[in-house]
Amino acid sequence: MSEAREVTVGVVGMNYWGPNLARNLDRLDGCRLAWVCDRDESVLDRHRSAYPGSRFTTDLDDLLADEGLDAVVIATPVPTHAPLARLVLEAGKDAFVEKPLALDARDANELVAIADAADRVLMVDHLLVYHPAVRKLKELVDEGTLGEVFYLYGNRQNLGIVRPDENALWSLGPHDISVMLHLVGERPSEVSATGESYLQPGVEDVVFGRIRFPSGILGHLHLSWLDPHKMRKMTVIGSERMVVFDDMETERKVTVYDKGPIPRTETYGEYIQVRSGDIHIPKIPAAEPLRIVCERFVQAVRDRAPTPSDGAAGAIVVEVLEAMSTSLAESGRPVALSPRGAAA
Amino acid sequence: MSEAREVTVGVVGMNYWGPNLARNLDRLDGCRLAWVCDRDESVLDRHRSAYPGSRFTTDLDDLLADEGLDAVVIATPVPTHAPLARLVLEAGKDAFVEKPLALDARDANELVAIADAADRVLMVDHLLVYHPAVRKLKELVDEGTLGEVFYLYGNRQNLGIVRPDENALWSLGPHDISVMLHLVGERPSEVSATGESYLQPGVEDVVFGRIRFPSGILGHLHLSWLDPHKMRKMTVIGSERMVVFDDMETERKVTVYDKGPIPRTETYGEYIQVRSGDIHIPKIPAAEPLRIVCERFVQAVRDRAPTPSDGAAGAIVVEVLEAMSTSLAESGRPVALSPRGAAA
Amino acid sequence: MSEAREVTVGVVGMNYWGPNLARNLDRLDGCRLAWVCDRDESVLDRHRSAYPGSRFTTDLDDLLADEGLDAVVIATPVPTHAPLARLVLEAGKDAFVEKPLALDARDANELVAIADAADRVLMVDHLLVYHPAVRKLKELVDEGTLGEVFYLYGNRQNLGIVRPDENALWSLGPHDISVMLHLVGERPSEVSATGESYLQPGVEDVVFGRIRFPSGILGHLHLSWLDPHKMRKMTVIGSERMVVFDDMETERKVTVYDKGPIPRTETYGEYIQVRSGDIHIPKIPAAEPLRIVCERFVQAVRDRAPTPSDGAAGAIVVEVLEAMSTSLAESGRPVALSPRGAAA
Amino acid sequence: MSEAREVTVGVVGMNYWGPNLARNLDRLDGCRLAWVCDRDESVLDRHRSAYPGSRFTTDLDDLLADEGLDAVVIATPVPTHAPLARLVLEAGKDAFVEKPLALDARDANELVAIADAADRVLMVDHLLVYHPAVRKLKELVDEGTLGEVFYLYGNRQNLGIVRPDENALWSLGPHDISVMLHLVGERPSEVSATGESYLQPGVEDVVFGRIRFPSGILGHLHLSWLDPHKMRKMTVIGSERMVVFDDMETERKVTVYDKGPIPRTETYGEYIQVRSGDIHIPKIPAAEPLRIVCERFVQAVRDRAPTPSDGAAGAIVVEVLEAMSTSLAESGRPVALSPRGAAA
Repeated sequence: MSEAREVTVGVVGMNYWGPNLARNLDRLDGCRLAWVCDRDESVLDRHRSAYPGSRFTTDLDDLLADEGLDAVVIATPVPTHAPLARLVLEAGKDAFVEKPLALDARDANELVAIADAADRVLMVDHLLVYHPAVRKLKELVDEGTLGEVFYLYGNRQNLGIVRPDENALWSLGPHDISVMLHLVGERPSEVSATGESYLQPGVEDVVFGRIRFPSGILGHLHLSWLDPHKMRKMTVIGSERMVVFDDMETERKVTVYDKGPIPRTETYGEYIQVRSGDIHIPKIPAAEPLRIVCERFVQAVRDRAPTPSDGAAGAIVVEVLEAMSTSLAESGRPVALSPRGAAA
Repeated sequence: MSEAREVTVGVVGMNYWGPNLARNLDRLDGCRLAWVCDRDESVLDRHRSAYPGSRFTTDLDDLLADEGLDAVVIATPVPTHAPLARLVLEAGKDAFVEKPLALDARDANELVAIADAADRVLMVDHLLVYHPAVRKLKELVDEGTLGEVFYLYGNRQNLGIVRPDENALWSLGPHDISVMLHLVGERPSEVSATGESYLQPGVEDVVFGRIRFPSGILGHLHLSWLDPHKMRKMTVIGSERMVVFDDMETERKVTVYDKGPIPRTETYGEYIQVRSGDIHIPKIPAAEPLRIVCERFVQAVRDRAPTPSDGAAGAIVVEVLEAMSTSLAESGRPVALSPRGAAA
Repeated sequence: MSEAREVTVGVVGMNYWGPNLARNLDRLDGCRLAWVCDRDESVLDRHRSAYPGSRFTTDLDDLLADEGLDAVVIATPVPTHAPLARLVLEAGKDAFVEKPLALDARDANELVAIADAADRVLMVDHLLVYHPAVRKLKELVDEGTLGEVFYLYGNRQNLGIVRPDENALWSLGPHDISVMLHLVGERPSEVSATGESYLQPGVEDVVFGRIRFPSGILGHLHLSWLDPHKMRKMTVIGSERMVVFDDMETERKVTVYDKGPIPRTETYGEYIQVRSGDIHIPKIPAAEPLRIVCERFVQAVRDRAPTPSDGAAGAIVVEVLEAMSTSLAESGRPVALSPRGAAA
Repeated sequence: MSEAREVTVGVVGMNYWGPNLARNLDRLDGCRLAWVCDRDESVLDRHRSAYPGSRFTTDLDDLLADEGLDAVVIATPVPTHAPLARLVLEAGKDAFVEKPLALDARDANELVAIADAADRVLMVDHLLVYHPAVRKLKELVDEGTLGEVFYLYGNRQNLGIVRPDENALWSLGPHDISVMLHLVGERPSEVSATGESYLQPGVEDVVFGRIRFPSGILGHLHLSWLDPHKMRKMTVIGSERMVVFDDMETERKVTVYDKGPIPRTETYGEYIQVRSGDIHIPKIPAAEPLRIVCERFVQAVRDRAPTPSDGAAGAIVVEVLEAMSTSLAESGRPVALSPRGAAA
């Protein structure tokens, strides 16, 4: 790595998640945190002592004008993601954007087009995709260990932070949607969502979402911040095996069940029978997803290495969120997604 | 009880659930199992030695013609529920029908009308409504312990019996739907359902259903016989407390969480805050629901005592199932239920 | 099996566990339940209808005098085990005795000697040894999967039946002691036990026992019928793997942990490090231990096949119980067991 | 608090636990971390930047000679606890000592006598005694909620750090022993312990200990760093209720079971029956024990307020550890503790 070119990055938005990104990028070999930026001077002041080698500014233009700067990390409030990312890309720099990439699919796809045209990196912080447990799930799916994937569902429930300005779908949904899209590897054909607002008018506290894929695979989401259980779980049902990723467990993140239906051709009679075999809990490395995602971004900046959460992946997540919002407003009416390409 | 009039009942359909009903009725004080009926002579033969005091027949007409017989219990295949119940009621006898009451709402409501007109008892075997844990839930809701009920959801999942002729909605759904309607006590205004068939074309293995009530309460169902978890769970979220009924637990059937949002008027700032207090697990009596439901039926036959699973209750469950089936066939399109009375 | 000689057995003692043995033996191919015996006529009457082909008597001598009878199963109160087993063996018949085999080691070893001299089968109902999960444990130990076995411990706790005439050691201990001796395969060198009587003077409600084996393996027992947890668990720690048998689980009876210390030779520094790998939960067949133990006894009667709970195994369990009782009375003083052979 | 006299403390030993104590003391209102001391200059260097207002030294005499210093916190290796505490007390300063207070009871009791004679504070870091969950347990015991306490047992098991120089008894035992003594409030009359060394000769990896109290209460310890389960649990069985403190739980630290034996006088028949009622999980405040213990020490220094882990409490823990070590070396022989006062 010592031979590799050093990548320089700036972080914009130091109020919530930005400090975590800054800290991780600062520690990475081959990466230099050149700039720390926030509109609020007092926010900047809280971080000055931690990064004595970085320059601090309240003006994004300072970063955009710095010819030595390779990339900008955008951790500002959600509505600013798309406009800031556009500025960054148009300034010829690579961009890493907090999730969601944008508030609507049109903006998201425009960003993808701009990045493609200029050969810039556009990457979205779909953190969970880099979680070692999700990588295990992806491996189990891709190697065929699960057999044919039938359906999958996510539970993200808790009595937790109630956002005043973002509903449970936009706040909690990007995690599970990005993982589902990553695991299935298909562009969804149709989605729907229902939910209800109990605490604040127009801000759904609980949302049930559904994603249908062309192959017949079904995805289901249960999202809520008004729940007695604390759940962060993804279950994938295949014809040969079933697997559960439970992020509330420490030692048992992934459980593989060797159980499923017995194909009718192997049994007699009209009933379909089921079988239940061993249960296996593979050791999942303790690697920190946030560190991995930062490494992957730096690598992408350096050598254009592809990532599983590039702009295109981020844009589909936004398309799903947007279509689900439409469905949510119409009591769960199914909403079709345009075939790939049509949206751009 | 010794002074009370003895009630005489006959059981029709001894192949699957009928024997459990016969055994419980036979043991009840004040009840005499007068007839055991099944179309299949060999099925009858399996039960003759257990009920030496009962008469056995393959012909339902024998029961209908017996003037001394008060009531008939119908435990035959689902498609025959409605026609047989009609015969029983028209013969002037009280009827107890396995769930679901009928295959469509029209038939179900006609049965209710016939029973009402003739002042006959029509009761449906919504067993779970008589479960001591559900009675506890009902008490918590009705006494206001939960505060305002926001939403509730049921999980009925397992790797279990795959029915060739009934989908997960009709097979598993009546349990949760009957409990939700019982707890909420409102006629639903709209339902929807999505699902997918993986093992047999046209027979859904997994179904997600939604019930919307006029007051804004939302109910959600997760039904599946293709799942690694064995779950039989109902969660009710209220403004003051949350409660979970977990039927897989032996000692902890009902858990009451003293947690919820803090009303904004009591806090400062724009965020809604949450609080989390004690957890309470009340002792639930070990009484057998099947025994209770049989007792309640015999009591109803004797003195017309009302029950929480009368014909009207059973008919709404069928309306919900029917409307969900419509929604299921149209990819989850929301389906409105007619206001009460309109369906009859 | 159709060619095999039919074995005839009689069961003595039908008040508590005897009926279970009778029912299982009666159903076994190649076995005929010839006699059912109990001193109490009214007890016999409860079982007559279930075994129309068997002869009933209140007099054990009827069984002993029946030349066609191969074997007698003794399920009478514990103090009568040894005297009745002696009568059965001296009458030239094979004997199956409920646990414990006797109330003291001297009696137990005499029975072994009598059986050996007369070439009669003497088998003890150490049911758990035949549990498929224990057979899995034995396989893991014997095949070296666990590496070198370090120690093992059993938890048998509950808020349960409080015996007026038997303490927790004699009531609960034989299960875990028989399993430990079976797994380790060594004659213990020393035992100790401590406990306390809270509900009835002189009858210990909670007992902690310890077994030391010559190889250095340690066994520990936690026995209690005054406990909030319901536990039936055996944990075995080896140098390479650790395994837990939890009989309260339905689907996860046996869990194998691929974890343990890293031998110092493979690491640097003075600290011993540990490693933690996959967890595996092998499918355990649902076979009923009681049925298996009956089959094994019938087989032993037919062809002298050895069993893991023969008289010798049963006698060591009694020796351990007796020595633990001595220790219990002396506040946990360690009590040495005589080397093998010396006791006879 | 602003009016209260400021307390000045120094911390000795910054290699392992000392930094945690220093950080907490430094943050406390009314306390000033005047000195940071370690024999190793390079260890000191790691902490200089964190405490710009404190003086650093490798020589304890600097602290002892500082007339403005009120108290010294000793977090050095265990064998140095007693000699350093003696120096501190003899220099007229208050002392806070990491557990265990000393390596033998004689030293511990001498320290108590010195502190008493000079009216100095001597406090031991029995952290768990200050845990909000243990305070809840103490309250349940003292208020009689549990009824008569019968027995209690601790499980401290894990696959964890294997100490080369300290066995599981001395390393893990002080936690549970201090809690047991605190809850029971009696001086133990007799102890015993058994264990075995598997990884290093003479260093026990697993220890089972027993404490007998004059009132008949029994305490039992299961200590191991070679175990597949991670357990940190204390169970207390009373005549009216049973309570479990499980420190591995986040939301359910303390569970109170309203279950127990039914006194014979209230039932008929010879059997003792049991009853099982509600389960209650009180909300336990999230307060940090380490912060509380530091606050209590500062308070004691300021106004001589008594604490539940004073020198006398710490000395009994050492007496128990020492007597258990004797028992451990003699295969579990019970070892009597001298009545109170005799040891001094």
